[in-house]
Amino acid sequence: MTARLTAWGVTGIPEIHPDDQLGDIIAEACRGEPNGPLQNGDVLVVTQKVVSKAEGRLVPVDANDPLSHKKLVEDEAVRIVRRRGDLIITETSHGFVCANSGVDLSNVERGQAALLPKDSDRSARRIRDIVRARLGVEVGVIVSDTFGRAWRKGLTDVAIGVAGIAGLVDLRGTPDALGRVMQVTEVAVADELASAAELVMGKSSGIPVAVIRGADASWLRESSVRELIRPPQEDLFR
Amino acid sequence: MTARLTAWGVTGIPEIHPDDQLGDIIAEACRGEPNGPLQNGDVLVVTQKVVSKAEGRLVPVDANDPLSHKKLVEDEAVRIVRRRGDLIITETSHGFVCANSGVDLSNVERGQAALLPKDSDRSARRIRDIVRARLGVEVGVIVSDTFGRAWRKGLTDVAIGVAGIAGLVDLRGTPDALGRVMQVTEVAVADELASAAELVMGKSSGIPVAVIRGADASWLRESSVRELIRPPQEDLFR
Repeated sequence: MTARLTAWGVTGIPEIHPDDQLGDIIAEACRGEPNGPLQNGDVLVVTQKVVSKAEGRLVPVDANDPLSHKKLVEDEAVRIVRRRGDLIITETSHGFVCANSGVDLSNVERGQAALLPKDSDRSARRIRDIVRARLGVEVGVIVSDTFGRAWRKGLTDVAIGVAGIAGLVDLRGTPDALGRVMQVTEVAVADELASAAELVMGKSSGIPVAVIRGADASWLRESSVRELIRPPQEDLFR
Repeated sequence: MTARLTAWGVTGIPEIHPDDQLGDIIAEACRGEPNGPLQNGDVLVVTQKVVSKAEGRLVPVDANDPLSHKKLVEDEAVRIVRRRGDLIITETSHGFVCANSGVDLSNVERGQAALLPKDSDRSARRIRDIVRARLGVEVGVIVSDTFGRAWRKGLTDVAIGVAGIAGLVDLRGTPDALGRVMQVTEVAVADELASAAELVMGKSSGIPVAVIRGADASWLRESSVRELIRPPQEDLFR
């Protein structure tokens, strides 16, 4: 694995609006970064919110009517997993299990809600392609979102779309340090990278993109976030 | 939040045995690190395995008899959360929900199993106290373990014990970038730091300790892993 990992937030990204070319904006901001130019093998982590905004995934919601939000949540769900009071845990069409189908009212204008991108792998590929074209570097791209967990308090950022970076890295069959064969160690590398990125982006500081330098070369491959989604029939908790 | 985060694995830590003074060994290894000396505000992430070994949490298991392992798992559980085939998800006495009560056969000698530390907050505090005494620096310490998740494939490292570093950072009530009050954003900072550390430690390379530099000063406070444990009565998934 890798010996050293560095993460920083990309400054200078303006408020994003529908039809903005997000890849161009990110490439331009990275060009002026005080941390220096992007390098081959860097991983860009881009929050869902700006992807959804650029892709026009904003819908009106009546800010004074909780039922308006609730209807959106139900419309975006393929399955209600749990419900208690105002809290709704759903499965989305992408296969994500999260609160409120990922429909989000924070960091969007009042009266609007942001839906998840339709296909965040595609969103990630577009950003990667534009960065390659503009800056001549081959990066991995993760679209991240902030999800809750069963059993544990607090939110962590996870990958909802990937391009050029592994979702899972399979260490099954790799001997452990004592030479025994390991049992199951598929590491959710894209989720761990998203979590590391969250730590430098913060929630309220308006930094929607981070760079992570030092990813192991073996992690940089074609992939899909579907690697990270546990099929319902294998899942003991829905 | 913080602007830049760097993580690296600490090399030169030997195989750990019962009654080893883990804090001393870590302080000594950090002293000789090519990345330079530890600084105030660094966070040490130490894997559960070496903590369990140093604390003598090793028990005999019959490697040829799966029932021997299974009995250990059940002995360590306060509740069986789910069971399917050989997979047992349990709640431990600490309140963690994980596979096999955290009883682990990898990276230990054949014929032995490693149990979770009895009190990983205490383990973390001991390491912090020894590092302060030996090196004169005030660090945060996280004891980490590798857990699975509901709904998502792949494992991620999470905190099972903390000292001097927040479990959760509460951003509720902090205005978002558009000045609206945010709804719920309690970030599981200790889990995200554990995940970042996992990326530089690897599972099979025998590096059980990582340093993370760049934690926000506000995260460095007295804490307990209990911050991260969702009480059963609030949990919709057990």
